[in-house]
Amino acid sequence: MRINLVGFGVVGKGFAETLLRKKDWLKKRHGFNPKVVSISDVTGTLVNQNGVDLAKALETVQSTGRVIDCEGAVDMKGLEAIESVEADLVVEVTPTNIKTGEPGLSHMFAAMDSGKHVVTSNKGPLALEFKKLRESSLKNKVKLKFEASAGGAMPLINLSNEMLSGDEIMSIKGILNGTTNFILTKMTKEGTDFENTLREAKELGIAESDPTYDISGSDTAAKLVILTNAIMGKEATYGDVKIQGITKITPEAIGLAKEDGYVIKLIGEVEDDRLEVAPKLVPINHPLNVDGTLNVATFKTDLAGEMTVVGVGAGAIETNSAILSDILSIFRNSNG
Amino acid sequence: MRINLVGFGVVGKGFAETLLRKKDWLKKRHGFNPKVVSISDVTGTLVNQNGVDLAKALETVQSTGRVIDCEGAVDMKGLEAIESVEADLVVEVTPTNIKTGEPGLSHMFAAMDSGKHVVTSNKGPLALEFKKLRESSLKNKVKLKFEASAGGAMPLINLSNEMLSGDEIMSIKGILNGTTNFILTKMTKEGTDFENTLREAKELGIAESDPTYDISGSDTAAKLVILTNAIMGKEATYGDVKIQGITKITPEAIGLAKEDGYVIKLIGEVEDDRLEVAPKLVPINHPLNVDGTLNVATFKTDLAGEMTVVGVGAGAIETNSAILSDILSIFRNSNG
Repeated sequence: MRINLVGFGVVGKGFAETLLRKKDWLKKRHGFNPKVVSISDVTGTLVNQNGVDLAKALETVQSTGRVIDCEGAVDMKGLEAIESVEADLVVEVTPTNIKTGEPGLSHMFAAMDSGKHVVTSNKGPLALEFKKLRESSLKNKVKLKFEASAGGAMPLINLSNEMLSGDEIMSIKGILNGTTNFILTKMTKEGTDFENTLREAKELGIAESDPTYDISGSDTAAKLVILTNAIMGKEATYGDVKIQGITKITPEAIGLAKEDGYVIKLIGEVEDDRLEVAPKLVPINHPLNVDGTLNVATFKTDLAGEMTVVGVGAGAIETNSAILSDILSIFRNSNG
Repeated sequence: MRINLVGFGVVGKGFAETLLRKKDWLKKRHGFNPKVVSISDVTGTLVNQNGVDLAKALETVQSTGRVIDCEGAVDMKGLEAIESVEADLVVEVTPTNIKTGEPGLSHMFAAMDSGKHVVTSNKGPLALEFKKLRESSLKNKVKLKFEASAGGAMPLINLSNEMLSGDEIMSIKGILNGTTNFILTKMTKEGTDFENTLREAKELGIAESDPTYDISGSDTAAKLVILTNAIMGKEATYGDVKIQGITKITPEAIGLAKEDGYVIKLIGEVEDDRLEVAPKLVPINHPLNVDGTLNVATFKTDLAGEMTVVGVGAGAIETNSAILSDILSIFRNSNG
């Protein structure tokens, strides 16, 4: 299978590392022999129809940060690579943009219009234009898979759609953002206030230098929309979510909750037509009470009752667990 | 799809109820129109090639407890029904036997030799003769699915094999028995001793009148063997498991653990070639610390890190969530 890799940041590099590390295993276990025929970032594209030398590309980009510095790289945008470099599948892992969805949105449409499958971790396009993307995938008879876009390594979407296929999913409720969970966990354990805890999280590299997207609840909302559409068959968009972040949580509120046997967590929740992201009280012994940067989601279904999945919601390699399983599922289907 | 239902106890009746309740939904959502052509228990078999009247069968058996009392039922064993009543799939849900595997084992072989798929919740045959059963399924080119046999509604097997297909599973660790978890949770919360707590669990119908199979760790061990073989590709059998139950746990031991921030849980665990069931210390904040009758399993993988699934491990309807999703997966595959 030939792959256009578009985006060569943390997740894209993690993808290349994963393929390198698991080359023999993938061949032996799944008969799967992927070939990355192009790597693009904003600076340029590296093309090789026989397969790009992933180790060499990683080495260069680790040091200079730019694909254009790789030997043989050309001045070509990701969009052009998708349209012109022959391949079967596009791995779209450019930075997410929750306002315009770009450049991911154009990449995904171009890929599907070229008859290529798409596997992505990019939330923005899916949270904004899910319906159009799904229509394009149906029209072009290609797969659009995005397990990595919500819940990192946790296979929430495929689990609900395939493993619980006899169940009706009544509601989804979860902690879908590791940064805010880290901050709230630390405030709970140490009694510190929001500002200081955020500063510490930045120093540890857990919060980004501009943490607005996480602490405002936007990231959780984008993921909630994706889960809602993919799992419950709805057509929600980002604008449908009522969003409240964690910036106003005080040590006093956390202390009061604790006295009553609760913790405060930033919960994304969908039930019927209500989509909401807000800090909520969670009983200390409840499966939703997970600590640190862990993510968690609870599904309520008609047969299975409540089912909870806890896992690592982010990280270069963890995200690639989901990307790889999406690719393998497409590979299996196209081979039989 | 025509189904032989073999076993009409709690799970078998739950299966009939589930099909009745979800008839329209299954047709609308999945285009799936199952027809139960025979129902067998130890007393006899009810046959109808146009589809047994499930509501009527349930009504009779709720009141008399015997299939033979249903109108038109004949003196035919489950094995004979499997061999003589035309169908595509056998749902094998007779009582489990961890010493001989019978009658489930003979039922499964007969079904596969007749070219029928098998979906089962029956642990005994799988824990004893996994290798032979798998070989029979390969030889006869039929599916043998058993998600319901370990972890009830939790889709542990299919999740690992399909959703985490790019991952190598390094270890599995979990609470796989609701009865023992209920007893230990109660002992922890109330400081009661084992004997009294067991008596209460019996009164509540959570422990069986002969609870040996659960409290000795046998049930956990059988499930652990099934998960080990199905997920990690091994060929373990029940005799390979080192087993210790919960009968010697004292309130004092639980109290000491608590002082150090731990709880005591009956954990089944496989890593490398070591299969073990034993009471273990679990940190209070760990995802494995789930209460009451809940089950939980944590997988450690090379890419996804640690992933935990929490759910209802038993129950007539919950078990049928897994049975139904197995059937639907066979249905999807047989329809292209």
